[in-house]
Amino acid sequence: MLGKFITFEGGEGSGKSTQARLLADALAARNIATAMTREPGGSPFAEAMRHVILDPATPPHSPLSEALLFYAARADHLDHVVRPALNDGVWVICDRFIDSTRVYQGVAGGLPGEVIDTLNEMIVSPTLPDLTIILDLPAELGLGRAYARRVDRINPDTEADAYERRDLEFHWRLRGAFQAIAAAEPQRCVLIDAAQDEQEVFAEVWHAVESRLLAAGA
Amino acid sequence: MLGKFITFEGGEGSGKSTQARLLADALAARNIATAMTREPGGSPFAEAMRHVILDPATPPHSPLSEALLFYAARADHLDHVVRPALNDGVWVICDRFIDSTRVYQGVAGGLPGEVIDTLNEMIVSPTLPDLTIILDLPAELGLGRAYARRVDRINPDTEADAYERRDLEFHWRLRGAFQAIAAAEPQRCVLIDAAQDEQEVFAEVWHAVESRLLAAGA
Repeated sequence: MLGKFITFEGGEGSGKSTQARLLADALAARNIATAMTREPGGSPFAEAMRHVILDPATPPHSPLSEALLFYAARADHLDHVVRPALNDGVWVICDRFIDSTRVYQGVAGGLPGEVIDTLNEMIVSPTLPDLTIILDLPAELGLGRAYARRVDRINPDTEADAYERRDLEFHWRLRGAFQAIAAAEPQRCVLIDAAQDEQEVFAEVWHAVESRLLAAGA
Repeated sequence: MLGKFITFEGGEGSGKSTQARLLADALAARNIATAMTREPGGSPFAEAMRHVILDPATPPHSPLSEALLFYAARADHLDHVVRPALNDGVWVICDRFIDSTRVYQGVAGGLPGEVIDTLNEMIVSPTLPDLTIILDLPAELGLGRAYARRVDRINPDTEADAYERRDLEFHWRLRGAFQAIAAAEPQRCVLIDAAQDEQEVFAEVWHAVESRLLAAGA
């Protein structure tokens, strides 16, 4: 049986990687084999593209060029990591996927949605997520968390990456765009209030996974 | 009036950059403003992508991922170099363009032609070349020239780039694919025997440009 493909989406500091890890642990406790991965990245070529995308030394370029880089990485990640795992019955949990492209390059960057639809049809189809969990958080709270994490855990001199440096209004538009995706595709997406504490958020994540993917007949 | 867009295509060592330079000089002698450029590359972001594409340290990836990198670079090159020049009435001469993608990633790499058609529609259209000059040469002669150039002029220790390292049979397939494009699109393409000496080849290049783009009514 094919594994299930679950993606986490949301703004900076919304807790995607924490929740992904909690979900992988909970699935493992039910003897379900899982693989955790992320985008951009997840395979050697895609990680090299991640470096190009996030490196401040990469020359400026349009949202169209950026989307094409993401899909170059995504094609590789799907072929070498996601599809082989799903075919082996392994559940794949991915931190960011196609909805981040639609939000960052599409809604915020101005790239027409039809371009992203065409790229999804060409490169992603038929490997769409079985479930997408969108972690919803006021932008200023998410950015505060992302900043605190950088200062506390890594290195006070670490620079914010290219996305975190944008202004707050930009991050508000991202939040609205994620909310709109959840509203437009309720059969695939669940919107969860990520301002709650970690365990409260995870209870909602688990409820979504259990009711949609684990219940009898799912 | 818009400038004309002329591309040179052909295998390794077929003389594309030499002929492009001779053409730019001949057009300048007729007081036509020209810009010479190349792909992959031609703008800061696209040159960074060129480095990624040609760097042997870039992890292996599929022809689809490679085509997406080329189009990320191409979108930037078109927006920042080719279209602004054409709009200013400048003629643009480009060393390699869409036909190289169709030949290298498409015919030789196995990427379906429809994928390349869709990318051209999305990213290149309506900026198709007014004239494409395809320099045709037996593969072993082109590779010999490319090797001699590397040894004689640059550095005997310089390694062959990723494309030159492929085997001869691969380069024969490339030649056949370029010939097929010339046969399929005679209104855009001219196939020229590049085994002739440089001035003989250029006489044919100039005849094509004069008869197709400079003659009264062209």
